[in-house]
Amino acid sequence: MNSFLSINDVENLPALVQEALEIKKNPHVYSDLGRQRSMCLIFLNPSLRTRLSSQKAAFNLGLDTAVLDVGSQGWNLEFADGVVMDGDKAEHIKEAAAVISSYFDVVAIRAFAKLQDREEDYSEQVMSAFKEYCPVPVINMESSTGHPLQAFADLITIEEHKKVEKPKVVLTWAPHPKALPQAVANSFSQWMQAANFDFTITHPEGYELADEMVGNAKVEYDQAKAFEGADFIYAKNWSNYKDYGKVVSKDSNWMVTQQKMQLTNAGKFMHCLPVRRNVVVEGAVLDSDQSIVIPQATNRIFSMQTVTKKILESTHS
Amino acid sequence: MNSFLSINDVENLPALVQEALEIKKNPHVYSDLGRQRSMCLIFLNPSLRTRLSSQKAAFNLGLDTAVLDVGSQGWNLEFADGVVMDGDKAEHIKEAAAVISSYFDVVAIRAFAKLQDREEDYSEQVMSAFKEYCPVPVINMESSTGHPLQAFADLITIEEHKKVEKPKVVLTWAPHPKALPQAVANSFSQWMQAANFDFTITHPEGYELADEMVGNAKVEYDQAKAFEGADFIYAKNWSNYKDYGKVVSKDSNWMVTQQKMQLTNAGKFMHCLPVRRNVVVEGAVLDSDQSIVIPQATNRIFSMQTVTKKILESTHS
Amino acid sequence: MNSFLSINDVENLPALVQEALEIKKNPHVYSDLGRQRSMCLIFLNPSLRTRLSSQKAAFNLGLDTAVLDVGSQGWNLEFADGVVMDGDKAEHIKEAAAVISSYFDVVAIRAFAKLQDREEDYSEQVMSAFKEYCPVPVINMESSTGHPLQAFADLITIEEHKKVEKPKVVLTWAPHPKALPQAVANSFSQWMQAANFDFTITHPEGYELADEMVGNAKVEYDQAKAFEGADFIYAKNWSNYKDYGKVVSKDSNWMVTQQKMQLTNAGKFMHCLPVRRNVVVEGAVLDSDQSIVIPQATNRIFSMQTVTKKILESTHS
Repeated sequence: MNSFLSINDVENLPALVQEALEIKKNPHVYSDLGRQRSMCLIFLNPSLRTRLSSQKAAFNLGLDTAVLDVGSQGWNLEFADGVVMDGDKAEHIKEAAAVISSYFDVVAIRAFAKLQDREEDYSEQVMSAFKEYCPVPVINMESSTGHPLQAFADLITIEEHKKVEKPKVVLTWAPHPKALPQAVANSFSQWMQAANFDFTITHPEGYELADEMVGNAKVEYDQAKAFEGADFIYAKNWSNYKDYGKVVSKDSNWMVTQQKMQLTNAGKFMHCLPVRRNVVVEGAVLDSDQSIVIPQATNRIFSMQTVTKKILESTHS
Repeated sequence: MNSFLSINDVENLPALVQEALEIKKNPHVYSDLGRQRSMCLIFLNPSLRTRLSSQKAAFNLGLDTAVLDVGSQGWNLEFADGVVMDGDKAEHIKEAAAVISSYFDVVAIRAFAKLQDREEDYSEQVMSAFKEYCPVPVINMESSTGHPLQAFADLITIEEHKKVEKPKVVLTWAPHPKALPQAVANSFSQWMQAANFDFTITHPEGYELADEMVGNAKVEYDQAKAFEGADFIYAKNWSNYKDYGKVVSKDSNWMVTQQKMQLTNAGKFMHCLPVRRNVVVEGAVLDSDQSIVIPQATNRIFSMQTVTKKILESTHS
Repeated sequence: MNSFLSINDVENLPALVQEALEIKKNPHVYSDLGRQRSMCLIFLNPSLRTRLSSQKAAFNLGLDTAVLDVGSQGWNLEFADGVVMDGDKAEHIKEAAAVISSYFDVVAIRAFAKLQDREEDYSEQVMSAFKEYCPVPVINMESSTGHPLQAFADLITIEEHKKVEKPKVVLTWAPHPKALPQAVANSFSQWMQAANFDFTITHPEGYELADEMVGNAKVEYDQAKAFEGADFIYAKNWSNYKDYGKVVSKDSNWMVTQQKMQLTNAGKFMHCLPVRRNVVVEGAVLDSDQSIVIPQATNRIFSMQTVTKKILESTHS
């Protein structure tokens, strides 16, 4: 693996999941792989799970890691070519990416959607530019349109909990007071389809994700109907794609409840966290045996560790 | 030791102090104890000494450590059960504590008193919740009512400098322009009494600490009288406990001076730092041989290292 | 080497450069030197290259490192003696430096010029105070008047790229929208002269650096004339020294262009980064083979690693 920007960088998905499950059993087996190599985690946005699970993955691999928070310090990067940089942007991505990649063997980046200009967000400006100007492998720690490390952790979790070969997995939109990116939903949709699961997306009319993210997923506007017989319910809010970045609905009827969970096939409840109790999902669901949100979050260590291991193996120290 | 939230978690105080003094002599003896284990330091408030001494303690134990600053990024946690989380709190303590403890073997937390609601502060909401929802050991890096790592370092320092078995130790209130928590004073009072020293607290009338923190300490409102024959003077400001969180007095007559130090039995001067010169204590006292504030701060490494060592020893990797 | 505050701490400059070039060939040879020792990187101002390259240097030396950001948290230090500290400064440099140096074997500090009071900036208050009150070695990661780790990296870079024993090196002022310190220009001037190169400074009239920084450098107000036959062009903005800290000129005629580079002896272009394209220098120059700004930035690892190595060697663990 040369970089990990999206599902497109995965050659053999079933093998990758198996590798993650093996690593989880013996997380310290590869503790020499990172020796005399180093990684930089660059956060243009806040992070808790990603920050901590990525550091833990690096600890397990014996990989020295530097963390750079740039959001708070206003490190505004210029991406356009030929611009006269006399404004608030002090550095061009060309120099920034080239310098950082000359210091580290792997560079991981988080850069959220700004939710103001759909075209700009969906062009993946930051991630593409790092990839273009970084000669070393780049890992996506959530970009404007995707969060593949989360989706990989989700898939590991489903593999651990599924009772049938091809479970019914439902991604349901849920209400939220703030405008959130589509990144988690997008990647989950892509990975569930790549895993060849029976995959349904349910959301209020008008909340359709981008066509290329929906792919061949079933779209069902009746949430109750979507839940019927589901093995996994994955709740997630996203802001509107069409009326880009807007909160068009906060309809609390879309909250996941214990009652709705009874429509499922003793289905498991998933969410990428952080989750707002009694807004996105009833607290009782999270506190029940049906919830697997904590093991799901724990698997963030192993999605990151597996990706980083494969990258380290394919590059020479 | 399963966790370290207060003096109540200490089984054998004299043995713990002896262990710290042994570790200080050979700080790298246990450098394999932390191998393939990791700790997370969570700061909800600023920190200099605690941040650096805790990292140093972890270095000495070979323990991988991630530092999480959450104060600045507005990571507002919800603590109440059953609340509809549609406000500014994006995550419930249940999920946050469970996830972090699934990543690390030890979790250390700093969460200051807010000094607005005495009942809330003295309920130790944050520390209790982490303890309740974290399956792994929790270390208190200063909570709303206590700072046991500081008190432990203070005790180590007194053991190193005392000339009699049972020294006279005086905790004196001192003026300060800002409202400060009672945490340091509370823990110092508890630990000095647990060490069975001759312990006196002196402060202006009305500045009484909570009864359970005063315990059996002598309370003397005449500072000069309290200083007489003292072996150790520990200065510290705290805001009012009765008129909770208020700065009722800034009386500069309570500043510790060289003249007052002459009332003591060639007593040593202590303070947890940072200290405001010529407000809390005359600069000349800090610059004199009587001051042991720097060795006291250095011992923060060894209180943390000893506590972490005992926790690592009592858990299996 | 006991500390590294400026060129004055370098005993044998040619030997130091040779050592850096050797370390660059085999960066992991001294990976045991830092064992059971630790360093603290203290940033009173933002940093990207210095932060990351310093951590990388520490990784290469096996040196445990803690990073402390104090700029954002308003850690205001008092430097004056005898002051009544009842204002916004919570800690005196005497205590802060003594405590930190009791935790770590090496302390590295960044503290920019404030550009308000020339006398204060040029007294090197922060760096001098740390040096005075820190019993352990101190490294300057850019102070108010100098950036010797940058100048050392610059010199390494020139040694790698020079074609003649004594190249012609030109430091040219360049326009910039903001007021920047003179630190980089000052140190570059000192190091180029210490290296005994043919060194010229060119800038608009009135932009003279401090006499002690200019030393015996040639000063040429005609930029074109300065560029003639140059082997290295080093562009850098600085704010005015005489009318202290002011932006007296933003004259875009001083921008380095491809056309001007043709006046040189196939000269290489250098800049310490970050650089504003088409303000300080034409983007085309940076994108051309003449630019060596990336290898120059990479050498920041090796200037830091060499200095830290020499300090570790001269102190006993």
